[in-house]
Amino acid sequence: MAKAAVLGASGYLGGELLRLLIEHPQLELSTVVSSSHAGTPIAELYPNLPPQGTLRTQGPNDRIDADIAFLAQPPGEAMKVVPGLIDRGIKVVDLGPDYRLPDASLYQSTYRQPHTDTDHLPEAVYGLPELFREQIRHARLVANPGCFPTATLLAIAPLLKQPGAPAHWIIDAKSGTSGAGSGFSTTTHHPEAAPTVWPYGLPVHRHVPEMTSAIARAGGATPSLVFVPHLVPIVRGILCTIYPVSTPTADPAAWPELLRTTYEAEPFVRVGGTPRLTWTQGTNLCFLSAQSAGGQPVLFSALDNLGKGGATQAIQNANLLFGWDETTGLSLAGFGV
Amino acid sequence: MAKAAVLGASGYLGGELLRLLIEHPQLELSTVVSSSHAGTPIAELYPNLPPQGTLRTQGPNDRIDADIAFLAQPPGEAMKVVPGLIDRGIKVVDLGPDYRLPDASLYQSTYRQPHTDTDHLPEAVYGLPELFREQIRHARLVANPGCFPTATLLAIAPLLKQPGAPAHWIIDAKSGTSGAGSGFSTTTHHPEAAPTVWPYGLPVHRHVPEMTSAIARAGGATPSLVFVPHLVPIVRGILCTIYPVSTPTADPAAWPELLRTTYEAEPFVRVGGTPRLTWTQGTNLCFLSAQSAGGQPVLFSALDNLGKGGATQAIQNANLLFGWDETTGLSLAGFGV
Amino acid sequence: MAKAAVLGASGYLGGELLRLLIEHPQLELSTVVSSSHAGTPIAELYPNLPPQGTLRTQGPNDRIDADIAFLAQPPGEAMKVVPGLIDRGIKVVDLGPDYRLPDASLYQSTYRQPHTDTDHLPEAVYGLPELFREQIRHARLVANPGCFPTATLLAIAPLLKQPGAPAHWIIDAKSGTSGAGSGFSTTTHHPEAAPTVWPYGLPVHRHVPEMTSAIARAGGATPSLVFVPHLVPIVRGILCTIYPVSTPTADPAAWPELLRTTYEAEPFVRVGGTPRLTWTQGTNLCFLSAQSAGGQPVLFSALDNLGKGGATQAIQNANLLFGWDETTGLSLAGFGV
Amino acid sequence: MAKAAVLGASGYLGGELLRLLIEHPQLELSTVVSSSHAGTPIAELYPNLPPQGTLRTQGPNDRIDADIAFLAQPPGEAMKVVPGLIDRGIKVVDLGPDYRLPDASLYQSTYRQPHTDTDHLPEAVYGLPELFREQIRHARLVANPGCFPTATLLAIAPLLKQPGAPAHWIIDAKSGTSGAGSGFSTTTHHPEAAPTVWPYGLPVHRHVPEMTSAIARAGGATPSLVFVPHLVPIVRGILCTIYPVSTPTADPAAWPELLRTTYEAEPFVRVGGTPRLTWTQGTNLCFLSAQSAGGQPVLFSALDNLGKGGATQAIQNANLLFGWDETTGLSLAGFGV
Repeated sequence: MAKAAVLGASGYLGGELLRLLIEHPQLELSTVVSSSHAGTPIAELYPNLPPQGTLRTQGPNDRIDADIAFLAQPPGEAMKVVPGLIDRGIKVVDLGPDYRLPDASLYQSTYRQPHTDTDHLPEAVYGLPELFREQIRHARLVANPGCFPTATLLAIAPLLKQPGAPAHWIIDAKSGTSGAGSGFSTTTHHPEAAPTVWPYGLPVHRHVPEMTSAIARAGGATPSLVFVPHLVPIVRGILCTIYPVSTPTADPAAWPELLRTTYEAEPFVRVGGTPRLTWTQGTNLCFLSAQSAGGQPVLFSALDNLGKGGATQAIQNANLLFGWDETTGLSLAGFGV
Repeated sequence: MAKAAVLGASGYLGGELLRLLIEHPQLELSTVVSSSHAGTPIAELYPNLPPQGTLRTQGPNDRIDADIAFLAQPPGEAMKVVPGLIDRGIKVVDLGPDYRLPDASLYQSTYRQPHTDTDHLPEAVYGLPELFREQIRHARLVANPGCFPTATLLAIAPLLKQPGAPAHWIIDAKSGTSGAGSGFSTTTHHPEAAPTVWPYGLPVHRHVPEMTSAIARAGGATPSLVFVPHLVPIVRGILCTIYPVSTPTADPAAWPELLRTTYEAEPFVRVGGTPRLTWTQGTNLCFLSAQSAGGQPVLFSALDNLGKGGATQAIQNANLLFGWDETTGLSLAGFGV
Repeated sequence: MAKAAVLGASGYLGGELLRLLIEHPQLELSTVVSSSHAGTPIAELYPNLPPQGTLRTQGPNDRIDADIAFLAQPPGEAMKVVPGLIDRGIKVVDLGPDYRLPDASLYQSTYRQPHTDTDHLPEAVYGLPELFREQIRHARLVANPGCFPTATLLAIAPLLKQPGAPAHWIIDAKSGTSGAGSGFSTTTHHPEAAPTVWPYGLPVHRHVPEMTSAIARAGGATPSLVFVPHLVPIVRGILCTIYPVSTPTADPAAWPELLRTTYEAEPFVRVGGTPRLTWTQGTNLCFLSAQSAGGQPVLFSALDNLGKGGATQAIQNANLLFGWDETTGLSLAGFGV
Repeated sequence: MAKAAVLGASGYLGGELLRLLIEHPQLELSTVVSSSHAGTPIAELYPNLPPQGTLRTQGPNDRIDADIAFLAQPPGEAMKVVPGLIDRGIKVVDLGPDYRLPDASLYQSTYRQPHTDTDHLPEAVYGLPELFREQIRHARLVANPGCFPTATLLAIAPLLKQPGAPAHWIIDAKSGTSGAGSGFSTTTHHPEAAPTVWPYGLPVHRHVPEMTSAIARAGGATPSLVFVPHLVPIVRGILCTIYPVSTPTADPAAWPELLRTTYEAEPFVRVGGTPRLTWTQGTNLCFLSAQSAGGQPVLFSALDNLGKGGATQAIQNANLLFGWDETTGLSLAGFGV
């Protein structure tokens, strides 16, 4: 058993981490940090969870008792605490963006603030196990990917390693509203959100630099990506519809088989017919499909933004960090309905 | 006052036509045909409508008493009745696909059945008033466009008339479930539809030939279109996200202004910020927007698939056929919420 | 033509009033007041509406140019402006609660603030035309009813005028989220609202005193009412399921016919089979049904909380105030889907 | 390890059972029967589940290899196979209604067909562990309760054991659409279901005799129940709002504490504030609350109709039948969002 801390426990990713940790057979929830709800009993903050004895949330300055810390905080917060955690020998999985980009200048231009932990930024491993499994095993700091990058990269990274891969791609993403977080806004106010589809994130979404640099690190040809996300009135789930837009020399007819062989040994990636978001709810599963629209190749990638796009992937990374079976504490069976 | 018949009254488009006709100041609902519900009082078939005296639906072989007939039937049905209606001097607005394509061979390859009314097919006018207004005024047979073509053409037809317009486009469409009609299916069964986004219509959707040929008729350069529709869990509304994918010589920065000037005198087309489907519900309005996603131009087009994508557009066409003000009986004010 | 002002234009009821006024053939939108959006062009505040020339919202202290003022403001605001409006000869329809209760002490105990316009409170007429039509015709100040009271009273007021009517009733109400208004809250945050049904308003909802006192004014036996509202994940619409819980001497088997005869001449109330909220969207319609659940009578009442439960009813009242046909500017045909 | 069969695998309850069995540490899925999909590989029928090797569904006449059989079939089917299963020493948990009522005549009047297995009907134990745990432990045939009875009985059974308990109750239930099953209907067709709340099951729902007889078997005073279910546009979940309607001599102010003490040792029942259906999705949890609406006591009971109202409760019963810890293979942590 290892002890686990969650920082940023009152957000949706933080809550999902608590749910997963409570059921994990090797990790014990030892510390829960919430600056907005410090001192609240867990059972009060999360009536959906089984009571956790006397465990309460603590404030950001209280001592963290843990072997691993999961950070689920807004941009800029993780880099304040990571140095101290690493100094104390605590492994870190950061679900925020602070350590996802390869250098401080790209971070600054993307998130409009300077990076203050350039000591550890270079050693952070991008936590997409299907692409960077070995590096994760030996890391002490894992940058858990964003939800859209996870969905996109699992679909196109294998293709970009092929000669003649398309250089330009359009990603039209549809996201459930939990992806926008627990903060209130017009776009997530039910009377306004329920009857429409909202394009957002224009002119440039922060996930584009993350995707591009992750592909570069994975050894693929760096593509040009256009990314347009839309909020749809569901709660959990992302569907990315992905279009290569430059004529490849590679043959798209080979893509279904290429994806199938790439992922046949992966427990959490399934390749086949048209995916449904229902199947991904609460799980670490990603469903991929390569099809044709009148001769134009089109890829579909589906996952739960709070699952493989967030908290369950963080657990998968933690399993790798401790050398456990990668599926420990994670379900392989999604909802049918 | 002119007398109006609806054929195919029990489907969603038929029902919407009844709703509109009952409120139209110049059209009187005189005949309602439903093969599946023949003999039913209107008040029983549509409790949402004000009682229509003794008016009942009639069967397909009963006499049609009308100056204009609106056909809202499955593919292949309209071409059986149009010759007889035109012979009797009854104007026709067909909301189905039978008269939308310019020739019988394209119809056959698209709808997998021969066209049996090649006498009238050539004279049918494509009923998109913003593009073909003058032809509609003088027609006796109008082919009311499909919902996706209406949304797409209003966005891109003006651009395709410019020199240097992009030759290739990707249309990623999101449609409410009413677009799938009143027939039951897994994709519209609530427990399966509500939590997901369903891509459908692959490998080739029937609306692509309609769009391509309508652009040709409108005098624009015929583009290559990739079209991928998705069902989203809302009821009414279509949002098309449209990406030009070949580098234009035309300047996309001019597109917002081009759309604005094109449509400034149009009562039903509004150009501006990000559209919401809520605004279109039950109306003949189409909202357009030209934006940029990291330098890539992207267009949004939103309308109600049962409104401007169907029944209200049919009324707009009827107004033109009779020489009335084009907005007669149609609302210019959409819902805010 | 009469000139109409809307005070509180940025809320959902205010926006719906604008939509209705713009389409009303006898009322002209002359003044739009919004303290939160003063100075905004209407086209910017409400892109769903047709542009209103140079009309802009004005602040609360600017001069109101109107023959009638519709007030759609939070509790306590209307009583500040009503005296001045009435002094200037402007008719008032107040959609808020300030003038719905018969006396100041009940207002104070219900809304936890003193009533500051006891001069005009006694003359206010409760604006439910089906019950108080004649008084409304001669009023200068109409208190437009709450959405739940409208639904409930239309169902039970006719029954309570019968001898032997039940003295105790349970009203289990289901409301769309637009009923909670445009203000953000956890209960209307899409990720939390969409998958659940929220009971709220316990231990006592403010609409209970309104219902009880309106029945008393209508001449019925004052009943004891239990009222439990629930938010359901739809946008517009209220369904009240109403159970009499004391054994009546009156015969419930007569209720369907009693409701039918009561409302047969009413344009906006329809009595029959199980109602659907879809039919009521954007309309002034109320659908009633009296049925039996294992021998227990049960009533259903459905309307649009922003329609008959709010803005369309305000227009109906305005039509009465000016002596116009009661249906002027109001649709009699609801959506079928 | 024990071997488990599922009969009726293609319905929603059958699919949920498969999901649970695949993750259960003591039960091995050995036989899957589906008359409508015989011969289909599991991975094709349920892409949401991890591949099950060569396991395929079999037809109803193929041999069942199992220690326990879960029956998820329409009324009338279970009683055809139960005698054979019991003869072969296979334990049975029947999720359908065939063995829930105490005698054949009540079954016939409720389900309009004769009961054909009166040999085993008397020995069937009603599978609500919180009320009948000891009987279940020693049973070979368990009648898994209906979803509405589970929600209702957990709320009111403890109260009905008190002296002076109310004799009459109204249960106003709100159910997600998965409760209506995988069969298509107008009430679950998305365009018609999404914007409304549908009352159904009038004049008498089949769950009323089940509730009444279960209370009698549990030793409580048999109450008179009025039950009105409504479909709401969510997928999983039931909320019962429960009103006692006869004046009790018992003190309702004691009910919150009575519920709390009754269930304090129960792993799956939680008593407290207003429950959310989100917390119950996919789990065996039931959330109860006793509150007051203007002095009138009102109870809320929430669960997942496919979980505690169906498949997870069946697993709980199986755990009892085999003498395992009751929570084996069942999650204690619900979704927060």
